[in-house]
Amino acid sequence: MKDVAARAGVGLKTVSRVVNGEPGVTPDTERRVQEAITALGFRRNDSARILRKGRTASIGLVLEDLADPFYAPLSRAVEEVARAHGALLINGSSAEDGERERELVLALCARRVDGLVVVPAGGDHRYLEPEIAAGVATVFVDRPAAGIEADTVLSDNFGGARAGVAHLIARGHRRIGFIGDLPRIHTAAERLRGYRAAMAGAGLPVDESWVALGPTGPDRVRADTERMLADRGPGPVTALFTANNRVTVTVVRVLAGRQRRVALVGFDDFELADLLTPPVTVVAQEPALLGRKAAELLFRRLEGSGDAPQRLELPTRLVPRGSGEVPPQP
Amino acid sequence: MKDVAARAGVGLKTVSRVVNGEPGVTPDTERRVQEAITALGFRRNDSARILRKGRTASIGLVLEDLADPFYAPLSRAVEEVARAHGALLINGSSAEDGERERELVLALCARRVDGLVVVPAGGDHRYLEPEIAAGVATVFVDRPAAGIEADTVLSDNFGGARAGVAHLIARGHRRIGFIGDLPRIHTAAERLRGYRAAMAGAGLPVDESWVALGPTGPDRVRADTERMLADRGPGPVTALFTANNRVTVTVVRVLAGRQRRVALVGFDDFELADLLTPPVTVVAQEPALLGRKAAELLFRRLEGSGDAPQRLELPTRLVPRGSGEVPPQP
Repeated sequence: MKDVAARAGVGLKTVSRVVNGEPGVTPDTERRVQEAITALGFRRNDSARILRKGRTASIGLVLEDLADPFYAPLSRAVEEVARAHGALLINGSSAEDGERERELVLALCARRVDGLVVVPAGGDHRYLEPEIAAGVATVFVDRPAAGIEADTVLSDNFGGARAGVAHLIARGHRRIGFIGDLPRIHTAAERLRGYRAAMAGAGLPVDESWVALGPTGPDRVRADTERMLADRGPGPVTALFTANNRVTVTVVRVLAGRQRRVALVGFDDFELADLLTPPVTVVAQEPALLGRKAAELLFRRLEGSGDAPQRLELPTRLVPRGSGEVPPQP
Repeated sequence: MKDVAARAGVGLKTVSRVVNGEPGVTPDTERRVQEAITALGFRRNDSARILRKGRTASIGLVLEDLADPFYAPLSRAVEEVARAHGALLINGSSAEDGERERELVLALCARRVDGLVVVPAGGDHRYLEPEIAAGVATVFVDRPAAGIEADTVLSDNFGGARAGVAHLIARGHRRIGFIGDLPRIHTAAERLRGYRAAMAGAGLPVDESWVALGPTGPDRVRADTERMLADRGPGPVTALFTANNRVTVTVVRVLAGRQRRVALVGFDDFELADLLTPPVTVVAQEPALLGRKAAELLFRRLEGSGDAPQRLELPTRLVPRGSGEVPPQP
């Protein structure tokens, strides 16, 4: 408490008032005290004590989108591991906004979670350094952290995308479109790199009108797909590689209304993909395994492991179902 | 603090130690003090103070299944309303277990959420009385609470199911199966009641072999569907009413592998339903509106509304797409 008082530039009595929720502290002073508490990792000692004493432990999971079904099995797997360790899981969503991610992570830390699994949205995670130093175990999943070293569990986004595009090339496609997520997102950039590597590996040029990156909302994806299917420049694409499940679902909808058959391989499996006409060929990740591995690494840290941070990369799997085996049509 | 000390049967100094996270308290004593704090709503004053002072407010959302896509738009709507009020949303899942719901709700209260939106799993919510009395605004959504009065937002499960089954009857079906969730779940019971009302309203008998209730996992649903489609007893069903989206998706999969066409109406819309063969006729709820209304009621309470608890019931909408218009086939 002395350290907090010194850092916040207030007396011990004021710190005590803030900690105990007593009146007589201005909002500005309270904020300074809370910031000092957070910066010094004060609450963490309390949390470690609670964990030791056996009061309900909890871990936090910060996703980027509550409504993306990709995260459903990932969340459930984290929850199962947490439950097996007698801990509750608390979730929140960053909505792909780095500032909200930070706000949510710090709010969970202030609410004394014992550890965090984070799908990072932001481009700088040094804000987590004081929390990690103070003992909040943190594991990143699906995407790596930026600016700090931490346990990380990823899929082989580059290799998976390269294999999916190579599958289309092997069936004779030469003009292949890529519709992906915002390029600042690690997984989107890696999958685009896989697309370019497959094209370059087959000696095929990439016309930049075949590459469309942006938010995964249906309006943007629909517009880019329709533009790419129209006959212009070097000729319309005969195949599409869609770089995540949200994009694929919209593209399936666009293709369903057209005469000309266009081959499609999507990154991520999704529910009912095998019952569509044609069934959708995908590069499947294992979201449940991503979640389980991340949670297991987290609990190893919580149990005191002092190993160097690990980085796991899980393989993906090409699932041919029909849409990716459509031959090129003019 | 005097009240807490008296209730826990300890001295003031011990309460202070627990509250301040100081050493020298046995786990048993700590637990008693924490229980007294919870019972007396001690933390709530602190929380209200925080909310007034403008530190980041937060609300909790307790779902029954993180992986059910029905809850995705509901969660996102609650989150949007929370954000519009400058509050963070923290989620958790009860996994359809009343004890876990209670544990999670109390853990969120102990972590000083300002309010709660709950999809109840348990059959008795009187455990929430001290929290509500102490000022944690609570709204129930999708299902009502049991044993307490609180704001509640539901869909018209009875009317929606009755309309869906009546739609099948109007197309000539007489032997209609009902595949639903566990009957202790309010929505499942209401939808079954709607099915029975539609059948009775048309003067049709219900053979009990046509009604199958249980967990919504694919194995159970598949087995019940196959049993119901087999020719036995009063003849096989010519139509199925599936009582939620998890059930519908499995039944679609079973029907896709069969020659004989069986009509299908599902409760809940789901992604890609319109692109299946045949497209699936559904009774659609508005999960985003359920979430938005619940969150709006919550913030009205947080802003001091002292009105009597409200109960909203949102209408459902029949969406004919093809599967529900298949005529009876022997």
